[in-house]
Amino acid sequence: MTAELYPHAAKGQIGRFAKLQQKKFRDREGLFLAEGLRTVTELLRHMPDNGYLSALFVEPDQLRNIPHKEHLRGKIFLIDPEEGKRLSGTSTAQGIVGVFAQQKGPGVQTVSSVSEGKTLVLALDDVQDPGNVGTILRTAAWFGVSALLCGPGTADRYNPKAIRAGAGSVFCLNHYSVDNLQRELEQMQRSGFGIFCSSLQGRDFRNYDARPDRMVLVIGNEANGVSKPVLRMADHHITIPRGITGQGIESLNAAVSTGIFLAKLTLF
Amino acid sequence: MTAELYPHAAKGQIGRFAKLQQKKFRDREGLFLAEGLRTVTELLRHMPDNGYLSALFVEPDQLRNIPHKEHLRGKIFLIDPEEGKRLSGTSTAQGIVGVFAQQKGPGVQTVSSVSEGKTLVLALDDVQDPGNVGTILRTAAWFGVSALLCGPGTADRYNPKAIRAGAGSVFCLNHYSVDNLQRELEQMQRSGFGIFCSSLQGRDFRNYDARPDRMVLVIGNEANGVSKPVLRMADHHITIPRGITGQGIESLNAAVSTGIFLAKLTLF
Repeated sequence: MTAELYPHAAKGQIGRFAKLQQKKFRDREGLFLAEGLRTVTELLRHMPDNGYLSALFVEPDQLRNIPHKEHLRGKIFLIDPEEGKRLSGTSTAQGIVGVFAQQKGPGVQTVSSVSEGKTLVLALDDVQDPGNVGTILRTAAWFGVSALLCGPGTADRYNPKAIRAGAGSVFCLNHYSVDNLQRELEQMQRSGFGIFCSSLQGRDFRNYDARPDRMVLVIGNEANGVSKPVLRMADHHITIPRGITGQGIESLNAAVSTGIFLAKLTLF
Repeated sequence: MTAELYPHAAKGQIGRFAKLQQKKFRDREGLFLAEGLRTVTELLRHMPDNGYLSALFVEPDQLRNIPHKEHLRGKIFLIDPEEGKRLSGTSTAQGIVGVFAQQKGPGVQTVSSVSEGKTLVLALDDVQDPGNVGTILRTAAWFGVSALLCGPGTADRYNPKAIRAGAGSVFCLNHYSVDNLQRELEQMQRSGFGIFCSSLQGRDFRNYDARPDRMVLVIGNEANGVSKPVLRMADHHITIPRGITGQGIESLNAAVSTGIFLAKLTLF
């Protein structure tokens, strides 16, 4: 019965999908991996339609944990622990690995020229840690950001660590990459976007009471901040002040800063 | 010359300190490991005095990157890549591993009974991810929190991942563990602390204009939130509202929430 509904994975499947641990193959196939029950469940809940699930590999004792599996017929395959390790690329595989289709990007011109009304775009400049990128995506989705724009050096949003940190949010807002962040931001600036860069040398962010209807918040590299060319073309540099006894700490984590800026921009 | 100033590590040293990857040995020795140039440099900058460095193991090509090494004489030992891997427990060792002494805790009674004036304490209830705990420690230090109180289930602040995420902050504020968080908070409540729990079902945090002089902010488990006994004894449940289009996202990352609450409490 189980064997009919849920056949064992074919050798070729495991080999093909294990390659999705590498960005090159993710880009080529337009697919990505998600590990663990919690991450897979969140993605299943947030995917635009069932077509976004390509395959779901589970160890038999995990089957009962999968919600609404009657809608996923023909896509669920059983694996053994060894195959789970191969798919996940870690020794701590959790017995469930999903293969999902990447979001189709909106195209660069959508955000800069089509969107009307209040538009808040988040841009990442060389944010290298995939956990940070996933957490930022999740935070941006929570606060209703219109799009996430990823500049050079920024970790792939479909890296398995980014997917885990993102908690399903990879399907919840538009996000895309550009080769030249400065040029992209200049184009947005010409179409009326105010460019705000996070910078330790910036002005106290509490001084900005009103925000422009169209604005980009730029978050920089964990160690070096926003790159010089982008800082130079920006309209404003903003910073989150330290507490009185917090003088020793160099900086906040990039995702934490993003959350504080977005809370201020959207809630206060 | 180099060999005299910087002898090669002894076999026994590597074996002994590699055990610090496990909490049991960290607790027993009162020491912890820090990996990578950036993390080690931050800890060297923030440690209260040079006595907190127990030993620094470096591959020869990393020697020139260590700041003020003339003050660390007798504590720097050369290693080869294989020894680096053993010490760090990962295959991606970065050629530099520090062994530091843990902060001596203030003792539970210090925070609840001695501290005067405005006192903001942060408490973690079953926050299991060491990266989150380290990021929260860093954020708490930035905003000048008086102490971090770690309840059962919370990841060890001296876990190597917590240390990396903490960016040196483990030396910048008081932090301690308690076996029974509810009882500890009740004791603080009796000595005048207001207990505020983060909860998705809580009241919009923007409704609290004034905060009590003595207050505890409790952050809960990544998936399940603050535990029931603690929720029951708390004075207030507070939440960060979503943006209009953020309805789909279940929650914010625990460290991001903490940052937003602390920014509101200390800056607005």
